[in-house]
Amino acid sequence: MGVKSPHELIMSSRVTGTPVLNREGERIGHVEDLSIHKVSGHVIYAILSFGGFLGIGERFHPLPWSVLDYDPDRNGFVVSLEKKILEDAPSLTREELEALGAGDTWRTRLFDYYGRYGAVPYI
Amino acid sequence: MGVKSPHELIMSSRVTGTPVLNREGERIGHVEDLSIHKVSGHVIYAILSFGGFLGIGERFHPLPWSVLDYDPDRNGFVVSLEKKILEDAPSLTREELEALGAGDTWRTRLFDYYGRYGAVPYI
Repeated sequence: MGVKSPHELIMSSRVTGTPVLNREGERIGHVEDLSIHKVSGHVIYAILSFGGFLGIGERFHPLPWSVLDYDPDRNGFVVSLEKKILEDAPSLTREELEALGAGDTWRTRLFDYYGRYGAVPYI
Repeated sequence: MGVKSPHELIMSSRVTGTPVLNREGERIGHVEDLSIHKVSGHVIYAILSFGGFLGIGERFHPLPWSVLDYDPDRNGFVVSLEKKILEDAPSLTREELEALGAGDTWRTRLFDYYGRYGAVPYI
């Protein structure tokens, strides 16, 4: 980016709790947490919670960062994927979240799934 | 990294509040927040608070991520820089933190300062 936007940085405390919107601008959930690669400092996933949206208890959807777009006008993140795609995506219980960074299983499942939507696996 | 560590990811909620230690293992402060580059999803700075350590009110020290090392044995972040270096580093009030991502001023000051300790400016 040659041209700097006014605020190109954002605090993690402002990201968590931020609404997640679909393309139509409807609120579908919020960012619960961020999963960060310790060594590189890259945010790998935004952990989304859709609350009652899926209606099957509290489950968490790790979404590769590149699939999210921040919309400053709406002060929220926009996912341009269809609801069905998000519903069918791998999701985890809170306990399973603890194992998100352990081993390759979730990484493989998530990037296999979101790879078709442009997400590139981290090293 | 060809070999995966057991947990190579960490949640932002576990990073904030985490103690920051010096080389000798003494607690010198904690991670107050993380400053993330919106587009790339890279953590640019860990925002450190040293509390009473500096004795000059609540000021925040943005530290380039590469200057911090996570120590899983201590469940904390280690800064291997001398106390004097941290004291002399650019620091901000809570109000100034809001402007951290606006324009190039803080970026230039911080990376001019920490560049000698291996930090590389973000694009």
